[in-house]
Amino acid sequence: MSTAIADLGRRARAASRTLARTSTAQRDAALLAGADLLVSRADEVLDANERDVVAAVEGGVAATVVDRLRLDVGRVEAMAAGLRQVAALPDPVGEVLDGWVRPNGLRISRVRVPLGVVAIIYENRPNVTSDAAGLCLKSGNVAFLRGSSGAIRSNVAIAGILREAYGKVDLPADALVLVEDTSREAAVAFMQQRDSIDCLIPRGGPSLIRSILDNATVPYVIDGDGNCHVYVDAAADLDMARALVVNGKTQRPSVCNATESVLVHEDVAASFLPDLAAALEGVALVGDERTRELVPEAGAATEDDWAQEFLDLRLAVRVVPSLDAAVDHIARYGSGHSEAIVTTDLLAADRFTAEVDAAAVLVNASTRFVDGEEFGFGAEIGISTQKLHARGPMGLRELTTAKYVVRGEGQTRG
Amino acid sequence: MSTAIADLGRRARAASRTLARTSTAQRDAALLAGADLLVSRADEVLDANERDVVAAVEGGVAATVVDRLRLDVGRVEAMAAGLRQVAALPDPVGEVLDGWVRPNGLRISRVRVPLGVVAIIYENRPNVTSDAAGLCLKSGNVAFLRGSSGAIRSNVAIAGILREAYGKVDLPADALVLVEDTSREAAVAFMQQRDSIDCLIPRGGPSLIRSILDNATVPYVIDGDGNCHVYVDAAADLDMARALVVNGKTQRPSVCNATESVLVHEDVAASFLPDLAAALEGVALVGDERTRELVPEAGAATEDDWAQEFLDLRLAVRVVPSLDAAVDHIARYGSGHSEAIVTTDLLAADRFTAEVDAAAVLVNASTRFVDGEEFGFGAEIGISTQKLHARGPMGLRELTTAKYVVRGEGQTRG
Repeated sequence: MSTAIADLGRRARAASRTLARTSTAQRDAALLAGADLLVSRADEVLDANERDVVAAVEGGVAATVVDRLRLDVGRVEAMAAGLRQVAALPDPVGEVLDGWVRPNGLRISRVRVPLGVVAIIYENRPNVTSDAAGLCLKSGNVAFLRGSSGAIRSNVAIAGILREAYGKVDLPADALVLVEDTSREAAVAFMQQRDSIDCLIPRGGPSLIRSILDNATVPYVIDGDGNCHVYVDAAADLDMARALVVNGKTQRPSVCNATESVLVHEDVAASFLPDLAAALEGVALVGDERTRELVPEAGAATEDDWAQEFLDLRLAVRVVPSLDAAVDHIARYGSGHSEAIVTTDLLAADRFTAEVDAAAVLVNASTRFVDGEEFGFGAEIGISTQKLHARGPMGLRELTTAKYVVRGEGQTRG
Repeated sequence: MSTAIADLGRRARAASRTLARTSTAQRDAALLAGADLLVSRADEVLDANERDVVAAVEGGVAATVVDRLRLDVGRVEAMAAGLRQVAALPDPVGEVLDGWVRPNGLRISRVRVPLGVVAIIYENRPNVTSDAAGLCLKSGNVAFLRGSSGAIRSNVAIAGILREAYGKVDLPADALVLVEDTSREAAVAFMQQRDSIDCLIPRGGPSLIRSILDNATVPYVIDGDGNCHVYVDAAADLDMARALVVNGKTQRPSVCNATESVLVHEDVAASFLPDLAAALEGVALVGDERTRELVPEAGAATEDDWAQEFLDLRLAVRVVPSLDAAVDHIARYGSGHSEAIVTTDLLAADRFTAEVDAAAVLVNASTRFVDGEEFGFGAEIGISTQKLHARGPMGLRELTTAKYVVRGEGQTRG
């Protein structure tokens, strides 16, 4: 079985060499061909998906999971629209990142190139198959995909159609390689294909991340938790602060850039917190002692509440004596995703942005803005909370690496 | 024991927060103080080193290993000079990498910041202790170091002196944390301190790399093998080609950017190879059949010879029918380090640089130029053959990450 995965890896690696020689125009044509073929053969995708859905329902899978799995014509059209949108983005490949001349006359440049083979392991969302395939192809990478067993029929149908479309415009079908073996052993073997995989990106929950940490030997980028804070400074505009917390908590509570905790400077706690509580109708508040004096309906926050990504209409609130205390709290409990300060004090803003260690620090803006689309990347493959290679929202640029090109006239080293 | 390592990690993490608030001037002062104290207390270092050397000799350690371990006054002074040289380099921290304004008025910038805690695990070279400490401190990172048991007395002495020097200029001594437990268990625990280590860089041989792949759960950058090729094109200047191969093979055969294989276009093989063989006196040649016809003293190359990093006065030679065949050979056997073409044909040069997948591709220059010093980085922590985060020579810039800073006036997401 691990031989079978290695064979797929070799096919992916071979295709990556062909892709490296293609033009942006060819790859864009393949994306558009893929979009067209997905729409014209939507019935095939929906038939396969129906079989996945029936199996899931019969297997007693939770309704929310079945909902993420289920496709309809609109969802297939959205997948096609996603491919067309990616085709319209600028190609990151070929950008000259920097260049200089050495005293001995060597001309050195650093050029953006595809990673090669990007592996993505993901859970029950069949749309990830086409989204990931699109982003990888645009950036000149082979998409080496391993979805879950629950969506395998859908994934096989979608991948088959895209591979056929690539062939129609003379790109290798193996620009998309799908692992059809959905066993746990195949997943582990997949994470260990160092000869073929240049970068592995998991799209899934904590158990998938744990498995990567335990088993992967290929390089990977992890899309981690977001325990995001808003610190309301002594010099905050309190109306603005209230609007930002309400937006950060309630606009879409289930996502990683939602606000999970609010830290309020003690000088403004009494004027801010009762108003905030009133504005957060339907949100369960838990707080420290001082918060509960000001907002009697708030529950008592436990140590777990400070550390947790609720992903729900629940908010932890703490009154802090200083900016330093807020920064300390964030250093202790934050997950390095997105952290915001609300203030009109320039020195406070500068200290917060300098001292808080996170992928994104925001001043007077909602934590909800930290994603690839809101940053203007046009597409997003995830949000990295690690510091190597990619930090924060990952777009096409994060699916590339660099190559040094050195030109001389026969220089030798003395 | 793993608790003890975790405690050291917590100290490193705490110090990294203090370092993040220091100025370039403060960190440079600490580097200069460290250099001065190393020189004035060289006796302590040499005493400790003598005990390591005696233990190594008594333990029957190979003479070449003992030689790498042994320090003298000159080597201690060279360590101090290295710290002064790093102090004189530009500080990468704070560079604004890019920035833009979104339609909603949000101002986004991406700023270079320290990684935080950089872990380095290394073998018997005590100079790595001060070299790594210097590069980490300059780039605002805590150096979390784990050397080998054979150099532990030297490492403890060097680290102690540097820590004392940092304290003299009001930096935290924990800007350098040395793991004194040199057991295998401690090494494995070290590789798994995800709460404290932002990046692990191994400096050592294949068994260390294997242990990282098997055990590490922290993010790492691997400094891999260099099986570097020179392709002599049909349109090469053959005198230049000969000089480049001689330089690449013989100037310092034991390093990763030395040339290990030469691929010669069949049109020039007869005029080139006999001359090359004559110029490579003292180098053992192994080749394919055609090479052995032209150079009768060459041995027969095995499959292993094509794949191996000799690190010795040994060179593999193959006659190839085309540029494509050269590119295919490199794709099959290369390690993605440094690959060169010698040619006067612009189209051949462009195809080679585009199609060969390596950290560095060179045109008409010796593979020996691919290192941090020759690239002008002023210092080098290693040469990455992986594609994530850092590819090719790693200088101070590769010891940093980026942070998004988002500034608004109360924007909420709709």
